[in-house]
This record gives sequence, C-alpha cells and structure tokens, in this order.
Amino acid sequence: MPHYERILITGAAGRLGSELRKGLAPLTKTVRLAGRTPFGELAPHEEEAVFDLADMDATIAATEGCDAIVHFGGAALESPWQAVLDSNIRGSYHIYEGARKHGVRRVIYASSVHAIGFHGIEDHIGVDAPVRPDSLYGVSKNFVESLSRLYWDKFGIESVCLRIFSSFPEPKDRRMLWSYLSFADCVRLVEASLTAPWVGHTISFGLSDNKVKTVDNSGADHLGYIPRDSSEPFRAAVEANTPTPDPKSPSVKYLGGWFCELGHPDDPK
Amino acid sequence: MPHYERILITGAAGRLGSELRKGLAPLTKTVRLAGRTPFGELAPHEEEAVFDLADMDATIAATEGCDAIVHFGGAALESPWQAVLDSNIRGSYHIYEGARKHGVRRVIYASSVHAIGFHGIEDHIGVDAPVRPDSLYGVSKNFVESLSRLYWDKFGIESVCLRIFSSFPEPKDRRMLWSYLSFADCVRLVEASLTAPWVGHTISFGLSDNKVKTVDNSGADHLGYIPRDSSEPFRAAVEANTPTPDPKSPSVKYLGGWFCELGHPDDPK
Amino acid sequence: MPHYERILITGAAGRLGSELRKGLAPLTKTVRLAGRTPFGELAPHEEEAVFDLADMDATIAATEGCDAIVHFGGAALESPWQAVLDSNIRGSYHIYEGARKHGVRRVIYASSVHAIGFHGIEDHIGVDAPVRPDSLYGVSKNFVESLSRLYWDKFGIESVCLRIFSSFPEPKDRRMLWSYLSFADCVRLVEASLTAPWVGHTISFGLSDNKVKTVDNSGADHLGYIPRDSSEPFRAAVEANTPTPDPKSPSVKYLGGWFCELGHPDDPK
Amino acid sequence: MPHYERILITGAAGRLGSELRKGLAPLTKTVRLAGRTPFGELAPHEEEAVFDLADMDATIAATEGCDAIVHFGGAALESPWQAVLDSNIRGSYHIYEGARKHGVRRVIYASSVHAIGFHGIEDHIGVDAPVRPDSLYGVSKNFVESLSRLYWDKFGIESVCLRIFSSFPEPKDRRMLWSYLSFADCVRLVEASLTAPWVGHTISFGLSDNKVKTVDNSGADHLGYIPRDSSEPFRAAVEANTPTPDPKSPSVKYLGGWFCELGHPDDPK
Amino acid sequence: MPHYERILITGAAGRLGSELRKGLAPLTKTVRLAGRTPFGELAPHEEEAVFDLADMDATIAATEGCDAIVHFGGAALESPWQAVLDSNIRGSYHIYEGARKHGVRRVIYASSVHAIGFHGIEDHIGVDAPVRPDSLYGVSKNFVESLSRLYWDKFGIESVCLRIFSSFPEPKDRRMLWSYLSFADCVRLVEASLTAPWVGHTISFGLSDNKVKTVDNSGADHLGYIPRDSSEPFRAAVEANTPTPDPKSPSVKYLGGWFCELGHPDDPK
Amino acid sequence: MPHYERILITGAAGRLGSELRKGLAPLTKTVRLAGRTPFGELAPHEEEAVFDLADMDATIAATEGCDAIVHFGGAALESPWQAVLDSNIRGSYHIYEGARKHGVRRVIYASSVHAIGFHGIEDHIGVDAPVRPDSLYGVSKNFVESLSRLYWDKFGIESVCLRIFSSFPEPKDRRMLWSYLSFADCVRLVEASLTAPWVGHTISFGLSDNKVKTVDNSGADHLGYIPRDSSEPFRAAVEANTPTPDPKSPSVKYLGGWFCELGHPDDPK
Repeated sequence: MPHYERILITGAAGRLGSELRKGLAPLTKTVRLAGRTPFGELAPHEEEAVFDLADMDATIAATEGCDAIVHFGGAALESPWQAVLDSNIRGSYHIYEGARKHGVRRVIYASSVHAIGFHGIEDHIGVDAPVRPDSLYGVSKNFVESLSRLYWDKFGIESVCLRIFSSFPEPKDRRMLWSYLSFADCVRLVEASLTAPWVGHTISFGLSDNKVKTVDNSGADHLGYIPRDSSEPFRAAVEANTPTPDPKSPSVKYLGGWFCELGHPDDPK
Repeated sequence: MPHYERILITGAAGRLGSELRKGLAPLTKTVRLAGRTPFGELAPHEEEAVFDLADMDATIAATEGCDAIVHFGGAALESPWQAVLDSNIRGSYHIYEGARKHGVRRVIYASSVHAIGFHGIEDHIGVDAPVRPDSLYGVSKNFVESLSRLYWDKFGIESVCLRIFSSFPEPKDRRMLWSYLSFADCVRLVEASLTAPWVGHTISFGLSDNKVKTVDNSGADHLGYIPRDSSEPFRAAVEANTPTPDPKSPSVKYLGGWFCELGHPDDPK
Repeated sequence: MPHYERILITGAAGRLGSELRKGLAPLTKTVRLAGRTPFGELAPHEEEAVFDLADMDATIAATEGCDAIVHFGGAALESPWQAVLDSNIRGSYHIYEGARKHGVRRVIYASSVHAIGFHGIEDHIGVDAPVRPDSLYGVSKNFVESLSRLYWDKFGIESVCLRIFSSFPEPKDRRMLWSYLSFADCVRLVEASLTAPWVGHTISFGLSDNKVKTVDNSGADHLGYIPRDSSEPFRAAVEANTPTPDPKSPSVKYLGGWFCELGHPDDPK
Repeated sequence: MPHYERILITGAAGRLGSELRKGLAPLTKTVRLAGRTPFGELAPHEEEAVFDLADMDATIAATEGCDAIVHFGGAALESPWQAVLDSNIRGSYHIYEGARKHGVRRVIYASSVHAIGFHGIEDHIGVDAPVRPDSLYGVSKNFVESLSRLYWDKFGIESVCLRIFSSFPEPKDRRMLWSYLSFADCVRLVEASLTAPWVGHTISFGLSDNKVKTVDNSGADHLGYIPRDSSEPFRAAVEANTPTPDPKSPSVKYLGGWFCELGHPDDPK
Repeated sequence: MPHYERILITGAAGRLGSELRKGLAPLTKTVRLAGRTPFGELAPHEEEAVFDLADMDATIAATEGCDAIVHFGGAALESPWQAVLDSNIRGSYHIYEGARKHGVRRVIYASSVHAIGFHGIEDHIGVDAPVRPDSLYGVSKNFVESLSRLYWDKFGIESVCLRIFSSFPEPKDRRMLWSYLSFADCVRLVEASLTAPWVGHTISFGLSDNKVKTVDNSGADHLGYIPRDSSEPFRAAVEANTPTPDPKSPSVKYLGGWFCELGHPDDPK
Repeated sequence: MPHYERILITGAAGRLGSELRKGLAPLTKTVRLAGRTPFGELAPHEEEAVFDLADMDATIAATEGCDAIVHFGGAALESPWQAVLDSNIRGSYHIYEGARKHGVRRVIYASSVHAIGFHGIEDHIGVDAPVRPDSLYGVSKNFVESLSRLYWDKFGIESVCLRIFSSFPEPKDRRMLWSYLSFADCVRLVEASLTAPWVGHTISFGLSDNKVKTVDNSGADHLGYIPRDSSEPFRAAVEANTPTPDPKSPSVKYLGGWFCELGHPDDPK
C-alpha cells in the first residue's frame, strides 16, 4: 500500500531525477514526471507534465492532484543570475504556491552543500548553522530553505531540504572521499524524507556513510535515513589519480570545494 | 560471579517488572521482588517483599540488605493527584531514604519520556534539557530526578534515571516507530545501568535502535547501553493500520504524544 | 490604573512577604494577604485569607477572585520531609489548582538558589541549567518549577519562578557579596514579573546588581527587571568581620553555600 | 574629516530614510539620495539619484562613485510576491552588483525582525539563530542576508544587516515595549555600522535600550552601538490604551508580532 | 585592613608593573618588588627581590612569606625561543613552585590576547574557547594557563590569568579602539582578581569599557571587575591619524592584530 | 603507491612506537626510526636516526628529507620537571622547528588523556573543551597542542594531536573498560591521521570502540578513524579481578584516573 497517491518529481530527466523516477515508484500510485521536454515512453504508473518552472501558472497547475512533491528541478550548478532567478528562485516559489493552493502535504527539496559552502571542515557544522553560500546558486538554495520554513510555520506544509553534497556515479577527487552521496543513498534519503512520521521543516545533509565525516547531521535524525554506501571502495583509485591537496586552499578547507574559488557567473571569462 | 548481593525490584509484578525479574537474575545472588500483593511461587534466588510504597517504614525496611534497587513501582500512567502523590512522590522518597539508611550503592529508576514530553521532535533534546512534563505523572518523574540528584551530590548514592519511551510488546502507532523500546532492550538498558563502572547521577533516554531518532542520548554514553532491537520489522503493519498524522497536532510534534492532549486527571470526564 | 484586580500574596507575614505587601500595592486594586494567622489591622485595599497551604480546599478557595498570585508561602529553609511535603509540595499544588480552577492569569513563585545549589560558581549557569538541589527544600523548589511548567504548557497559566539568592536587610558574609538581593530589588523583581507583557513560563535568578556575578540571568531578560542596589556599600564591613574562605570548600565554591554542607533534616543532630 | 566620500542612501524618502538623510550627514562629504521620485530642494552636500530598484542598469549606475551604501529602499511591509521580488530581491541584487562593480567598501542593509519572526520570546535568540521568516517580506530579508554573506566571503564587500524591530515615533502597543527602536537610536545604529573598524559580514538586531529584552545581540557587539533611548517613557500610556494580551497567541509569543498572523499577501481578502 | 600580608609583584619595573606597584599598595601590608636590577629608593611598605626568573632557587626563595603573587614578569613581546623558554616557561614554573612550596594563596598572572590571537573578531569568543596562539610568546601564555590550572585542580592554589589586550597610555591605532585597556583599568582588574571572594582558576580578558567589543568576558564575571575607562575619547585622533584598514587582512580580522603577521622570531630578518 | 616518501617515527623503540614501526610501513617508501640508542637490524625500507630530543640541532637534522613525522617520543608518564622540560617541551619544539625548516607536511603527535584528565566522566567533553591537565606530563601535552596550533595557523604545517587514553595489550582495571585503545586501533588511528584528505590542526581522542563511552570525539570525524576493537572481551576478567570502585574518588570520576591522585613528581616520596 503506497504512501502517496501521486508524487510530482521536478527535474525528472536530470542526473538525480532519473534515479528518483525509478527509486520512488514503490511509494506512490502515480508518479508525475516534470521537465521542460517530453519524456518519451512512460510506464503505466507514470504521467508527465511538461513546463518551465519560470511559468507560474503552468507550475501551479502541475501540482494539482499531488500529495507530495520531490523538487529536484532548476539550475544544478553556478549559473548566470537570470537563470538562477528564473529557475531556482521564481521556479521554487511557484512550486510552493502550487503546494499551498492544492493542499500538497510534503515537499522534498534538493538544496545543496553550496548553501553552506564557506563553512570549514574544521567547524563540523550542524544543520542549523548560519548560511554561508558559496555562489549565486547557493544563495538560491538559502532562499528556498527560508521560503519553505515560512510555508511550514504559516501554512502547515511539511518540507525536507536536502543539502546534497556530491552525488555522482563515483567519487572523482579527494574531496569526494567525504562529500560522496551514492545514487542509491540519494534515493534512500528521499524515501526516508517521504515516509518519516513527522518532518515539519527539516534540513538534512545528503551524504553516504563515508569514513571521513565533515558535518554533523544529527539534527535530521528523525528522518530515519540510514546510508549503506561509502566512498571507501574508490579511495585507492582517487588517491592514485589526484595530487596531494594544499591544506590552506579554499577549495580544500571549505565544504563547498571548488565553488568557493569560482568568480561571479556574469563576469566575462 | 554476580555484581550484586541482592537487588530489590519494585513494581516487580508489572509489565516491565516481570521482564526485569527474569532478565536481571544473572547479575545478583538474590532478587527481592516488591509489590502490593504476594508473588506466588518464587525461584530459589528470589524472595519477596509485600508492601505499599506509600508506607514509609515498610518501604525502608524492604531495602535493608540490598546493594541495588531497580525502582519501577508506582503509578505508570497519568493518574489522579492523590495517587501520583502517594505512589510516585512519597513512595520514591521512601525508596531513597531506604537507600540512604541501608547503604544501597546504586538505584535504577524508571523515569519517563513524559518528564520531557512537551519538547518537540524538532529540538532533538539531550538528557540535560530543561524539564517539560506533560502530565502530573511527568511532574512526579521530575521530582524523583531532582531527588536522586540530591542523594548523589550530598549522600553519594549513585542513580540512573531511565526516561523510558514506549515499552510494549510491539509498536502500535506511528509515534512508536521512533518511541519503541523492546522488552529485551529495556532489560539491556537496566543491566548496563547496573554494571557500568561509574554512573554518578545519570539521566538516560530509553529507546531501541529505531531508524527514526528524535532525541540525543549521548550524555548517557557512559552507561554502555547498546540496543539491539528496532521498530523496523513492525513498520509496514503500523503504517497499514494507522492514518497519516496531522503534523501540527501536539500529539504528533511533541515527544510526549497523546499525553500532551490529556486534560487534568482530577477533572470529571 | 492598576494592572490587576486582586493579587493574592501567600506568606504575606514573612520576611519578604511583608515587603511585597507594601511594595505591590500600586499594581492592584486589592491585595489579599494569606497566612496561617490573622494579620491584624488591614489597609482599605487589603483583605486577608487565613488558612494552611496543606489544606487543599481552603487554599483553592483563597484564590477565587484573584487574577494574580504571588506565592511566597511555605517552609523557607531546609526542613523535615513532612514539612517540605505539606507546605511546599502539596501546598504549591493546591495553589496551582486554585489558579487553574479560578482562571488566575499569572503566578509569581518564590523559588530559590537552592534549586540549583550544587552548581559551581565556575559554571556561570544560565536559567535553563539542569537542576542541582542542595536540600529537600531545593527539591521542593524543583517540584514547583516543574509543576508550573506543566500548568503553562497545558493549561495556559503564566508563571515566573524567582530563584531568590540571599534576600536579607544586608549581606552578612562573603558569599552574600554576590548572592545579595536587597528587599527593594526583590520588590522590583516581583513587580517586573507581574507587569512584563509576556512571561509564559520563566525562571529567573533573584539578585541585586552586585559587582561579583556568578550566574547568567539573560534568559529572563524579557521580565524587564533592572536592579538598583548592590552589596558594595557593605563590602568593607563584611570583609572586616569574616575570615578568608577556603576556596575548596563546598560552601564556598557552590552556589548554594552552607546548604551544601547540611546533613539530612530528619537525622538526629 | 568625514569617514566617507559619498554615501548612497536608498529609500531616502521613507520614514527611516528621512531620518538617515539628516543623521548621516556628518559622516560623509556627499550624500546621494535615492528614490523613485525627485527629492525637491537639496542641501549643498546632497545629490539625488532617481530610479527604480528593479532597473538593474540604473541601480548599478547609481552606486558609481560611492564608498558606502545605506540600503533602506524596497517594500517595507508584507507585500504581493511581485513587489517583494522586484523591489526587495531583484533590487537588492542590483545594489550588491553595483557595490561589486564600483568598489563600494561597505553596505548597511535594513533587514528586519521579520527575518526571524517565528522565533519565540522564550528562545532569546542570538544573531546567528536559524532563519524563521514570518512573511514573504521576511523571506526577502533572508535572501539579502544570504546574498550579502556571499559578497563578503567571495568578493570582500563588508555588510551589516540590521534586523530592525519597530522603528516608529513612539511605541503603540505592548509588543513595542520591547520592540521599539527610536529614530535617534536607528541613526546611531547605522552610524556605528558605518564607522566600526571591522564589520566583515555582521547581522545585528535593531532595538533601543528597552527594559524588556527578548533577544541577545552580543554577536554584534563589535559594531559599538550604544542605544540611548527606551520605551519606558511611553509605558504608562501604552498600558492604559491597550488590552492585556493573550500569552498563547502567536502575535504575542513570537518576535514577529502580528505579521505571524497575516495570511498570504496574494490571497483575496 | 589590607587583604594580604605581602604581595610579590614580578616585572615590577615594567610598564604595567610600575602601575601595579602604586595601585596595589592599599591591598597589602608589604609589597615585594621583583626585578632583574635594584629598584632604587623604596617606600616604607616596599621591599625588593632582585633575581632572574630563570633561576629556580632564587625565584622560589623570593616567594617565601608572600600570600599573593602578581606575576607580570618575563618577556612581554614575541621573542626568540630561548628567551621565551627561560623567562616565560621556566620562569613561570618557578613562580608556581614557589607558590606551592610556600603556601601562597592566590596568583594573578599576566597572560595575553596573544594566547588566543588567531581567533576572529567575528567569533566573539568567551574565555573558555580553545587556544589559538599567534606567536611563541602566545604559546608560553598557554603554557602558564595550563600549568596554573593544574596547580588549582591538584594543589589548591587559586589563579587568575588575565589576557591583557593593549595596555598603553592611549590607543594608537584602530584596533586599539576595541583592544584598549587603560592603566587605571588594568589596576582595577588586578585588584578585583585579588579581592574576589572565590576565583579558583579563572581566565579573564583584560579590556576597558570600549564601545566596540570583540570578546565575551562573562565567564569571568565572578571577579567583580568593572572598567571605568574607554577608548572613546581617543577615537577622533586615532581615526584622523590612521588609514582605513583592509577588512580581509589577518592583522585586522584576528584578535591578535599584527602579531598574526609576524614571522618566526629566530628567523633572520 | 605509498602516501609518503619518508616518515620519521620518534619513540620508535617504545611500546606504541614498535607497533607503529610495523603498522605504518605500507604508507611510506622509507621509515626513519628515531630513538636514543641504535635499533639493531633494520628492514630494507627502514633507516635509523639516533639522537636525544633535547638536542636541537640533532633533532632538526633528523627531520630532513621527511614529509611526515609521527612524534611518539619523550617521557610517557608523569616525570620530574627537568625530564618533562627536556624531552616533552624542548624536544617537541625541536621537532616542530625541524618540520618548519624542512618542509614536513604533516605531524602526528602522541598527546594524552592527561591533557584533559581533570574533566569528569559526567561532562562528556568534546575535543575543544578547555584543557585540564592532571600532571606536569599533561601540561607538556597542552604545550605541544598549543605549539602545533601555531605552526598550522602561521606556518601551514598540518598536525593531528592524538589524546591517547590507555593503550596496552589489554585492559587491566575497570577504568580501562572505557579508556582502552588496542594496539591495532592505535595504528589505525595514526594511519587515518596520515591519510585523511585534510587535517589542518586536529585534536582527537584515542580510544577503541568500547561500549562505555566517556567523551565525544565527533570533532575529529574528518580523520576517518574507525576503531574495530573493544574492551568487551576482557570485561569479565577485569570485573573478577578488581574491586567495585568508589564513585566519589577522583581516580574514578575524572578522565585522568590515578594520575589525578599523584602528588608532585619532584616531591620526595
């Protein structure tokens, strides 16, 4: 007996969205896949909604009939201001307005390590540390974390904001030895967020069970997320292929990694 | 070689007392079972003490010859003031006076989640959070936590106050997915409390290793309690049999659950 | 225009109660003085209620028609258990039941430093530190702090628990150089507690503006209490009349002072 | 010898902007007043810049030649989303881009209590507490707090975000007994923010020295702000003219006051 | 009636020692001035002890007959390792051995901001923050802070370690606007340390009441130190004579100031 | 492919040094063994350096050509001051000067529980708790922790300070039930310290995965140390062979154990 009638997944054609499309199927009768272009062949439990997040009416319409939203859409890297504004800030506002207008119970949002990227490894921050964005992208994540807090406190819509670190097929550099989130663990984390008895407004880091740990996620222990993967199998290869890092470099000592050394996205290269 | 000569178990005929009667036998040469009515047939290592906790002299007498007390007696639910006063407040005072007068080394006390029931899940409190009782019952637990602190600081009697959450044969509602303490883990917790090298005055939450965690018990890590059970095997059944909870309801967002919504026990129903 | 229609003052014949009887008059149309014996001549704005706090019905009756209670009655020093139980534990329960049954808006309670007397000066505790009673008297203060928390969280009755340190005409020993609360400041503190826009359930230390400060009262800053007195004018005399203390002695290093070195009140002297 | 060559004041025609226009004159050779309509007669040290904050090019152009910006422009109350987006989110981004492109050293930003309005009085939060916006207006304040943090960490532009509570000619209700910021203290606070030796990225509450204190501003003590006013002279009048508040009401127990009880600004009334 | 029979002041010929020589006279019958060369004419209440702190026997001998030591001797700036070792590390050990062997009750030690110089202004550290020395000089201060803690915990000798910031006749740069400690306040601080009823082992920052505050000294509030001076009268002159600082520079953002940018003292210049 | 070209191990002939000599071999091309006497037969990947740590020139010379130092040399117990000074304080300074002069990247230092031995079990301290040495030995550990912090903050040399509890072949008393660090886990801990991607300046406790936990090591989670051993297999034997401890005794309630009850090492026995 699935937990939900219909889950809307935004960004469903993306790297993580594709994994969630498969992984969340057991939790719901219907999955509504959202993206900017059609998805092609759909499974019987799937339906699609094609629209741009910057379009308020279309976005709100796409949330109708859903009791949960897994909001992974929008720009996934540092991007020019206009893109950040349209896809991440305005787009996410549209999603929350849809949730409010159509009575969606719970929203799971793909926030990012870049929301707190300028904190140091040394600080071992918890989920309630002050924000330290490392990019306009990170600022937009803070915006949605704030917005979703309002929608919980004032309108009673539950949200989980997942600060995903590095979710890739495998770790590619030494930072990913601690920032790695396997695809399978990413699905587990969203699943836990969707099924926990109570979430209110929860911020959680998104990490596999890597040996090296740089943050304290205990403030999200009520999600019931238990990672099963680790960067350890990839360690030898990573160490062989990457140089010893300079421990004083911002990209090494701060959580955000190389984002901390990016310039402004609207500056000429 | 058992740790103790004689352990007194109060409430030994109760739901948890019966489990402890069996489970603690290896730790002691003799178990003295305390209750308000006779226990019937006793094992060779058992003896009984029949009295009412409200009777100071009888209670003190029952502690003679014991080097540990496992105090699980008294009212186990919200109750009228007179019952709370006699069984939990006065009765526990009598137990501690017995411990002081007869040189009992260590007392393990069944406190309760209801001592801090009005804290929210969101707060992830530790064991030293300010008290937030959700009932007269919870107030009486705070009383004994305070009293036992005095008996440690001033009289050198060690105590462990176990804030037991939901110790039942199995979880029955969605809150118990995180509040469940199996009988076997309850016995393990009392056993750890009795055998830890040092406890001084310790407050510990009493929970199994449920996936969803709502409190931080690290302040009691010196007990050496390692739970082995979990609510997970019961999850599917619980979710099938209980409705989706309202996340804004006091009984859902506060640790104390439905106790938070009870009226005053002396009011007419 | 006074803040209250009728304030009940318990312990109104006591050392502090006498001061409050005078000092609180401007805040209320009527003062109801409570004590175990008649008060003799009364002012026009005064009325009396003579009863024993251990008498539930009489105590509840005495609260009728009041919109605030200043509860300074009960045993004011370490006392035998039966006295602590009757006057402080049962008596205070009766007061809160009166408040609940008769719709009293706010209760100001004389708690005590002895509720946290086994904390050290070194710790600079705040008002939310775990309890550390130094006496049965202190345990009874913890009981009422817990009980009043319940009556706020569940029944909506506001309370301020004032942990009064040393309120005497003048400091008499070196500890009082930091523990002194002048009578005038005591009245100011109760006045602030009665007139602050919101108190919910507040615990506050009760101290004058002594130079030496041993606790952090910032958690009660919403009371708006501004002390105007200090132990400083008495310093020279105190230092001349008292020996240099032993810094390792419990009565010197702990907040509770000589209470920390008292034995059990029911033991033969 | 003034601290600055040219300070840009946005919102210079507003309630607080008008005060700052007068009060900050001693700190700078030239004040550039920004608003949506011309200012009429200007003093010799004044110049004006008329533009809409939603116009990126015009806003950036207006920052040229300035070494400090006092950004008090934008929507000052809960407003429809489009207004919040254009004036507060996009407008503030334009201001920071101007600062970055034209080498402005320091920005003083009018954030608001509504950035953390859903925290309770009881919590006595500090400046680094997690955000709890009480309105779309509050969310936009969080956005700029995040954005300005990025511009400090990555681009080296110092900012002070002033969470102004209630800055009016005088306190009008009981909440303002603790939330009051006099106009003169508001000017003092901005002046301190402009002249402190180092601010990096600082968040500060904006309050007068009211007796009742509900937050802990010590994290901004490096600004050197010393308030000189208080709500106390207005207390009697306020108490006479306003009813006793209900302590369980959101508008009473939360910092944000009546904003906490507003609905969504885009809903029909 | 003075507090002490005989106070030993080391470094009594130094900048601060000279002030203490005068200022502490009322507290003691006899002042013993310690230095490496004779002091010339002495007042009737004065006596001298001429020795090198690196000489263990001489140092211990100099403490005989004293009931307090004000230890301000040793290298007062970053110095070559051998000087730091002999004067600050070995010399202070000799002082504490003298205190232990001759029953000295209390030691007041001139520690320094350089013991925690690599903490940032932004952190607003308290007195119990982890050490962050900015120099070998600072490391030696940490050594004595650790040593004196041992001598309290194990041998019962009370100590106050004063982390003096910038004690000069007047502030000379913008950092000193917040780091200034007037000579008169320095004397007040030592006087408070000598006369507080209990100090145990206390670490305190040493600062005047400057408007700009960068650290939290509340952990030392039991000293009863009330500063009366401020850098404010010197502000205009300082601002006129010094350039605007670069907020990203270590000497500006860290507490230790220019010490943070010094190289190793044994390196060739 | 080993992580290091050449690791210098000081104290390589000691109890733990011998284990590290074997255990660290896979991490480096060459191990340079340091001790006061020759090591006898060496393996092909080994070389030796024979010198006294008190000899600055010899010590600095021994660090040449190394890219890591595992500094386990010096006095390993409470010792007379001169030995602590020469071997632990001066010797460690020489090691760090060698690291600075020869560009060593990372130093792993054997600090000790005795650096914080006077903290109580009850406190569950983290790695950033204030120091509480229980011996001159412990003070010397604090010295090196401070010195290494300076060498990181100012000179960019990474360090890990391992506060080793009780590293012996097996637990011998009840305290070791929680203070035990197996030899194999000790090697794992040093290995993790040498291979973690970033350590900056890290302080870590050194403990096996004992059931009873008395400290919170989460501040060192970025080392990636996963213990695999426990005192549990030895529990029955320990309990059988040792008496029940007195819970009020310093050697039982403080982390440092019997060191807390030692006198001064230079006193006659």
